[in-house]
Amino acid sequence: MTTAAAPSRIKVGIVGGTGYTGVELLRLLSQHPQVELTAITSRKEDGMPVSDMYPNLRGHVNLAFQTPEKAALEQCDVVFFATPHGVAMSQAEALLKHKVRIIDLAADFRLQDLQVFEQWYKMPHACPPVLRQSAYGLVELNREKIANAQVIGNPGCYPTTVLLGLAPLLEGGKKLIDTSNIIADCKSGVSGAGRKAEVGSLFSEASDNLKAYAVRGHRHHPEISEQLQILAGQPVGLIFVPHLVPMIRGMFSTLYARILPEALDTDFQALFEERYADEPFVDVMPAGSLPETRSVRASNVLRIAVHRPEGGNQLVVLVAQDNLVKGASGQAVQNMNLMFGLPESTGLTQVAVLP
Amino acid sequence: MTTAAAPSRIKVGIVGGTGYTGVELLRLLSQHPQVELTAITSRKEDGMPVSDMYPNLRGHVNLAFQTPEKAALEQCDVVFFATPHGVAMSQAEALLKHKVRIIDLAADFRLQDLQVFEQWYKMPHACPPVLRQSAYGLVELNREKIANAQVIGNPGCYPTTVLLGLAPLLEGGKKLIDTSNIIADCKSGVSGAGRKAEVGSLFSEASDNLKAYAVRGHRHHPEISEQLQILAGQPVGLIFVPHLVPMIRGMFSTLYARILPEALDTDFQALFEERYADEPFVDVMPAGSLPETRSVRASNVLRIAVHRPEGGNQLVVLVAQDNLVKGASGQAVQNMNLMFGLPESTGLTQVAVLP
Amino acid sequence: MTTAAAPSRIKVGIVGGTGYTGVELLRLLSQHPQVELTAITSRKEDGMPVSDMYPNLRGHVNLAFQTPEKAALEQCDVVFFATPHGVAMSQAEALLKHKVRIIDLAADFRLQDLQVFEQWYKMPHACPPVLRQSAYGLVELNREKIANAQVIGNPGCYPTTVLLGLAPLLEGGKKLIDTSNIIADCKSGVSGAGRKAEVGSLFSEASDNLKAYAVRGHRHHPEISEQLQILAGQPVGLIFVPHLVPMIRGMFSTLYARILPEALDTDFQALFEERYADEPFVDVMPAGSLPETRSVRASNVLRIAVHRPEGGNQLVVLVAQDNLVKGASGQAVQNMNLMFGLPESTGLTQVAVLP
Amino acid sequence: MTTAAAPSRIKVGIVGGTGYTGVELLRLLSQHPQVELTAITSRKEDGMPVSDMYPNLRGHVNLAFQTPEKAALEQCDVVFFATPHGVAMSQAEALLKHKVRIIDLAADFRLQDLQVFEQWYKMPHACPPVLRQSAYGLVELNREKIANAQVIGNPGCYPTTVLLGLAPLLEGGKKLIDTSNIIADCKSGVSGAGRKAEVGSLFSEASDNLKAYAVRGHRHHPEISEQLQILAGQPVGLIFVPHLVPMIRGMFSTLYARILPEALDTDFQALFEERYADEPFVDVMPAGSLPETRSVRASNVLRIAVHRPEGGNQLVVLVAQDNLVKGASGQAVQNMNLMFGLPESTGLTQVAVLP
Repeated sequence: MTTAAAPSRIKVGIVGGTGYTGVELLRLLSQHPQVELTAITSRKEDGMPVSDMYPNLRGHVNLAFQTPEKAALEQCDVVFFATPHGVAMSQAEALLKHKVRIIDLAADFRLQDLQVFEQWYKMPHACPPVLRQSAYGLVELNREKIANAQVIGNPGCYPTTVLLGLAPLLEGGKKLIDTSNIIADCKSGVSGAGRKAEVGSLFSEASDNLKAYAVRGHRHHPEISEQLQILAGQPVGLIFVPHLVPMIRGMFSTLYARILPEALDTDFQALFEERYADEPFVDVMPAGSLPETRSVRASNVLRIAVHRPEGGNQLVVLVAQDNLVKGASGQAVQNMNLMFGLPESTGLTQVAVLP
Repeated sequence: MTTAAAPSRIKVGIVGGTGYTGVELLRLLSQHPQVELTAITSRKEDGMPVSDMYPNLRGHVNLAFQTPEKAALEQCDVVFFATPHGVAMSQAEALLKHKVRIIDLAADFRLQDLQVFEQWYKMPHACPPVLRQSAYGLVELNREKIANAQVIGNPGCYPTTVLLGLAPLLEGGKKLIDTSNIIADCKSGVSGAGRKAEVGSLFSEASDNLKAYAVRGHRHHPEISEQLQILAGQPVGLIFVPHLVPMIRGMFSTLYARILPEALDTDFQALFEERYADEPFVDVMPAGSLPETRSVRASNVLRIAVHRPEGGNQLVVLVAQDNLVKGASGQAVQNMNLMFGLPESTGLTQVAVLP
Repeated sequence: MTTAAAPSRIKVGIVGGTGYTGVELLRLLSQHPQVELTAITSRKEDGMPVSDMYPNLRGHVNLAFQTPEKAALEQCDVVFFATPHGVAMSQAEALLKHKVRIIDLAADFRLQDLQVFEQWYKMPHACPPVLRQSAYGLVELNREKIANAQVIGNPGCYPTTVLLGLAPLLEGGKKLIDTSNIIADCKSGVSGAGRKAEVGSLFSEASDNLKAYAVRGHRHHPEISEQLQILAGQPVGLIFVPHLVPMIRGMFSTLYARILPEALDTDFQALFEERYADEPFVDVMPAGSLPETRSVRASNVLRIAVHRPEGGNQLVVLVAQDNLVKGASGQAVQNMNLMFGLPESTGLTQVAVLP
Repeated sequence: MTTAAAPSRIKVGIVGGTGYTGVELLRLLSQHPQVELTAITSRKEDGMPVSDMYPNLRGHVNLAFQTPEKAALEQCDVVFFATPHGVAMSQAEALLKHKVRIIDLAADFRLQDLQVFEQWYKMPHACPPVLRQSAYGLVELNREKIANAQVIGNPGCYPTTVLLGLAPLLEGGKKLIDTSNIIADCKSGVSGAGRKAEVGSLFSEASDNLKAYAVRGHRHHPEISEQLQILAGQPVGLIFVPHLVPMIRGMFSTLYARILPEALDTDFQALFEERYADEPFVDVMPAGSLPETRSVRASNVLRIAVHRPEGGNQLVVLVAQDNLVKGASGQAVQNMNLMFGLPESTGLTQVAVLP
């Protein structure tokens, strides 16, 4: 069924394209050979050509922002929501009636546990039945379900790095690491905070500075925990400390796990290499490598290096991605490709920009 | 009279200390040996310790923000206004009745021409008589008037660089350069835009980027023009193009002027060196020097280098300052010192922070 | 003749690919649909996989660096030199014997005036006859000659912005501006200094800082002057002041020219729009626009905005490009496309990366 | 004895002042009220005024670099070595004969274990007897010994943060945390790599990028371990992963320790506050605080915040400092003050520069 869709172009709508995940979707989709961008909505910017707000798109995207009313989203094959939390779930049922598939880049379809969702996002869920049928859009862990889903909850940026960095250690109930006490020390570029006008994201606040934030609790923590539990088949104890780093794009997670005594002979390098051998967007680097965020800047690749300092009982997994690509919009396009039966890397083969 | 004030400390109030010029005033005044900080106002942050907003001040400033009503500003010797345009002029007369001197870091007392003020700042002036008695606070050009003034209009950051960079060429009706066609290509760090939450000042917008702005007209243009005319004794034609540069602090102005045929034998290096020989905060660097903004970071020094490419008829004057110090709060303290008969560099001798 | 080459892939060699123009060539050429990368040389890094030095190329470029001896460059269709000045000219004649075309990203084939070359680059030219037959590779100004050339001198980054920003005003002996006194105030990101280990290019030196440099004379000045004279049919007086700005990529040139009295009625916006109407890589923005360097980051587009402050007699032309793409490697690929009869934008349609 | 030195100024020499710790020493010492800077050596820059290399010192430091032969260091009261590892130990005995005290900012007197020193620094120690009498210059942990020492090994920047962040938990054999498995995830600005011309420290390499480095082993690891063992009275198991962050100054260490079951009732906030209550340069922030590196930029203060996510059994200690001040030159001056009987904060009371 899905493969039949490939010959004609996928009609794509974007709701709320004024933020960074929106412009990144536009950058990727405007170069995607199987996509026809048909509508992009912004109530506030109705009528403004997209390329007036984002001059990098001049000559590439000729659409103007429209109100949702004018945008005829129900005629799209798929709609991406690059909106605040709560928007996608309010429009999902109406679109699904028209057989429009949905990829939400916010949190509406990430957490299966309704109570946890409502605790962290301070709003009731608008459509629990849709949520139950949605798929968590981390392709490398959930490929089959995504291919058959109508609604995708595109993962958070931090969860993408932590989950892909830990999956080979936990999947299928493996007994390799102490799951009571995993540490994720994560560092994010400032674009992760979005394009909102907030003092903390000002150049003069964030430049030449580093801080930890949300140490008391970050919304990505329950998302990671839910998925880790699914992976491991049991609850996993995780300490998660995010940090804000003066770079535009880029996310780097340093994961610490204690190897169980019975697993000390494991070849962790081989474990990771084998796990991701067929993945087009996960690069397990050679032993001893030190990934850099710039090596994935503007690309959908996530790089992993596995270290074991002094050959001891502590595993250190280093994970680098571009938070706006593999951590958001690139992953969303990867989900779309999968949903529509296209080769997964269609439109996502850009070489990272370095320097 | 003023010298008598030195033994006891100057009681200082700050109105609106939540922005960057405010915290910079606090940094400088908290280390000033002759100052007693007595009040700082913010209607919005009433009750918040200043050091909660600005943790660099922990252990140095014990004040909390207060509403203007509680702050008893009329008991101060001097009040600095680190507020938006329009605030100082609305409170000036009330304070002057109590013999409180006023230093406004906004534009209320910069432009003598009321019509020009109202055209650029879109508000009527609240107290023209006070304006007429105020002094333009560029110490190096206006020392005597400042020493005797009750109200100071502290210069804009761009005007400080352009005026000090051109003064030796224009003062006293000198006939050295073509005054019909001077170009000021100016580059500013992002802190010049203040601590307002605006999209254009976000890290992800301003970092790794450069643009010109306000090419159609910038509020500092009429300020510069008015002062240039005073200096030169005639109108001066100036093209002024400001640029936004990804650095926190720092301003760099590149000034281009055509040397008049009759002035081609002038020793411009000597002209500048002599003009500023006794100035503690203007450093005319040796011939051939290339000033860097970091060489004045966090200090009140402004550095100038005079170039004449290939010995031709074009003069290129390079001017570097810290926009928050000599371009704003440091200059304001320099004005205060002068007004209270203190040595001009009291509390302003910090070495620039490099790297 | 050239069109015949298109069906089979162009065999491309790169000499000296370890610098920033080298890795940028690799980024672009590895995605070019008509190119087969066959060799890349580095005497120092012989045997090292290219992707070990540049991890962004992992999975995209499988070549290893080779010594020139092993690289069999004479079997290539075209060789790019991303080397220091002096290398290309020493190897040009040998390659030309094998009908290998040459695109030099250094200065060996930029300046036609041998005396000027030797004065600025402190070396005799190794092959004046080759130089005389070479073409200056600024496609928009020199398309026909490039299409038929065997050897291209790829322009410097500064000259590209200044020449394209001034060409519509000067071409064909137009009498629009005072050509005795044009000012180019240019700002460059740090990657323009290359990947050499030099103190001045260190992060801790160049970050949060701005300075002018080479005010006494920069090698790009005679290159610009020679081309301006060709354009204008007469010598042009230019003051050129380059500045170093804390961004990785990006170049912004602010050009100032006095409009001649007889040309005050000119519609300069229309002049520029018409001149570049058919150019795929020159974007004349709408009147009043303010280009940003990030709007061209990692793309081959150069954007121009034309301003006339207060409608006066001074023209201000703003030009933004990515110094490594349109200012270097992208332009080199554009030249290659033209030389081999390919559509000029083949492999160069990437959307700029913003934010 | 030492108090007698205060009235007359301390004669200070600096060996090797061309790096970042050197210029930072000059910034601090030139403003120190009890110091007379008498000599600064650099064999390579003999005769160059210090302020030619570091223009921020123009008007503050009038010395020129000298060869060690001319510098008459033996007439100083104290000599700072801001040199590569190995220099101080080669000159220590000669200076000590003249009663000159020594503060080495490199590693020659940091590690008491000679074998460890030689393993990590690849050189034999030149003067083990001097080493044995030297003091490890972390004032807050070693005040008495420092006050009486002739030779100080000034701590590394990473060790300063890790040791001060863990000391309250380990001192005196306290049984509060699992000492077998402490994690230090540390982030440093680029100035920590010094002013050496190395590709990895270039702006275009380090900007807009983040990476871990030296995961296999960093020289500061054995230094931390040796001191932790002294503090705890037993070996401590530490995983130490340093990261390079695109900021000039600033170091941030995130420390993770598991609380022992018997210590779960401990008030860790109170523990830290009491431990450092009298320390002028250690600021234990209120519960829940999130320190930022910019809050200590250019100041000698180190800030600590103690967190216990969800009240669980994991302690997270956040530590921020300026790597060039408390992490290097400021700490060295603090040591000098202590050695000469001055109040410890003499010359070190600068307010941090924010923004």
